[in-house]
Amino acid sequence: MCEMLLTTPEIFIVDLDGVLTDGKFYYDSSGKRLKAFGVDDSEALHALSKHLEIRVITADKRGFEIAKARIAADMGFSLELVPSKSRCETLELSYRLDRAVYMGDGFYDAHVFRKVLYSIAPANAFIETKKHANYVTNSLGGQGAVAEACFHIADKFFDVNLTDL
Amino acid sequence: MCEMLLTTPEIFIVDLDGVLTDGKFYYDSSGKRLKAFGVDDSEALHALSKHLEIRVITADKRGFEIAKARIAADMGFSLELVPSKSRCETLELSYRLDRAVYMGDGFYDAHVFRKVLYSIAPANAFIETKKHANYVTNSLGGQGAVAEACFHIADKFFDVNLTDL
Amino acid sequence: MCEMLLTTPEIFIVDLDGVLTDGKFYYDSSGKRLKAFGVDDSEALHALSKHLEIRVITADKRGFEIAKARIAADMGFSLELVPSKSRCETLELSYRLDRAVYMGDGFYDAHVFRKVLYSIAPANAFIETKKHANYVTNSLGGQGAVAEACFHIADKFFDVNLTDL
Amino acid sequence: MCEMLLTTPEIFIVDLDGVLTDGKFYYDSSGKRLKAFGVDDSEALHALSKHLEIRVITADKRGFEIAKARIAADMGFSLELVPSKSRCETLELSYRLDRAVYMGDGFYDAHVFRKVLYSIAPANAFIETKKHANYVTNSLGGQGAVAEACFHIADKFFDVNLTDL
Repeated sequence: MCEMLLTTPEIFIVDLDGVLTDGKFYYDSSGKRLKAFGVDDSEALHALSKHLEIRVITADKRGFEIAKARIAADMGFSLELVPSKSRCETLELSYRLDRAVYMGDGFYDAHVFRKVLYSIAPANAFIETKKHANYVTNSLGGQGAVAEACFHIADKFFDVNLTDL
Repeated sequence: MCEMLLTTPEIFIVDLDGVLTDGKFYYDSSGKRLKAFGVDDSEALHALSKHLEIRVITADKRGFEIAKARIAADMGFSLELVPSKSRCETLELSYRLDRAVYMGDGFYDAHVFRKVLYSIAPANAFIETKKHANYVTNSLGGQGAVAEACFHIADKFFDVNLTDL
Repeated sequence: MCEMLLTTPEIFIVDLDGVLTDGKFYYDSSGKRLKAFGVDDSEALHALSKHLEIRVITADKRGFEIAKARIAADMGFSLELVPSKSRCETLELSYRLDRAVYMGDGFYDAHVFRKVLYSIAPANAFIETKKHANYVTNSLGGQGAVAEACFHIADKFFDVNLTDL
Repeated sequence: MCEMLLTTPEIFIVDLDGVLTDGKFYYDSSGKRLKAFGVDDSEALHALSKHLEIRVITADKRGFEIAKARIAADMGFSLELVPSKSRCETLELSYRLDRAVYMGDGFYDAHVFRKVLYSIAPANAFIETKKHANYVTNSLGGQGAVAEACFHIADKFFDVNLTDL
């Protein structure tokens, strides 16, 4: 009989746009104006944060203040600016990627997927990116994808039902 | 021949975000800015209110003023702030849950589903939550889910076609 | 061999919310703030207006100024406020409904469908309403439903391909 | 053995509304207010721009300042106003259409499709328009359609995997 030993992740790194948002930038004539976040993700991330660290990252410099209003001020998580093209190199300086779960949707995120312990993509991720993820959620970014990912991580790595109070 | 006797519900408790809205929080750089509500839900709730009481609840403290502008000022229903984690305990203080229909979509709403007479989830509800609902609408929150639920409740419990004038 | 003689419609009455919009009311803390309209509908309605009259109606009093900014100021069509519950009675005062094509999505629109020459519902219409429409578009309101309806009307009643320049 | 010789395109002309946006015009009571752009398209277009020229065009005069804020100021591409009905004639004055890839979604875009080397429509394009495109993306406008098109163009015409860094 064979029992698989899973490495326990220490950190969950979550990309912002298209993962915690619906992947749209709402512009008015003066520039980037709105981002749309989902309802369940905050509670799910807080519940999961008892089991591993949570880090939210974004490549969007111009939308950083909008993202901070949600992630830092209202949800209470830290938010880091990490460019998408050099994401692997930047993240490796701060984190042990072989102990990280990473959730991303973007054009270059398959590169990060190769370096982490476990990779997750939301249903709306870039088509080529989804092919390389360990797990693809049924839910869309900003519409439950992160909550579903948290539930999945808790079940898979910590054998916990995250919605139990 | 067996006839099922249905307990008649006295109240319909409707969660706000993801049920009466599209489940998104639209942020600008100063914080939560917009919520998006559906077109049919107001008329459907008013039609159903001839048969049972309507209560709208929300767990979103920071978005309460936005919700009030729609629910209280424009639709004319009362709106209560009820945290999602302690929702059962709080609702039990005010309502007979065994006579309530409850509609919710969230991470912890399956706990409420267990205590009420009849539970409804919109199509976009959290995946685990939908598994525990008595009825899942075909429509999405903020896009007809509550109108569909009202039609269903009127048909099932009051044998009424709600769209008949 | 049997040839069907179609009555030629004289007017196309188009409901606004959920038909020319995505069916959402975007609220901020001071009330109704935004409506979202589609890209193709204006050109399609203008092309169809060579064949029959176009009328846009809305039941949304509080959103009337927003609707006017799109329909009257930018698209150049007239816009009338017509309550949804008494829609049949109100429309019959001004129009010959047996010569009208009517497009609506709402809770009470099946009542109008019974009185008009031909009825159309967008893909996102209220479930019970769709059952009574002569034609249901594949496109959603605010995302091509009216353009598709215009194309369909021109083809069915005027034997014209509306996209031919 | 037969080898197909593909003409190499020199330019990629991308329509704005419904292709680089979600196809909605967000109005408030003073007029057109917001457009919603996607997350991946900017990076994909910049990656593709090593292989051919990129041009963004729009028929929306009233929304031009909003479009410029995204396309010119933030993405760094030029943006031209080109009416949709006379699009072929206008584009032919400036570009060799037999060397152009054109991506559009609109009511009259099938006319342009006939004149260009290769035509692409997003999944949300007008139904009749999609029938005439050489390639229809799986992604929706403003939700990855252009990124997917860039990936497809690079693969088909330049034998390059665009996400390789």
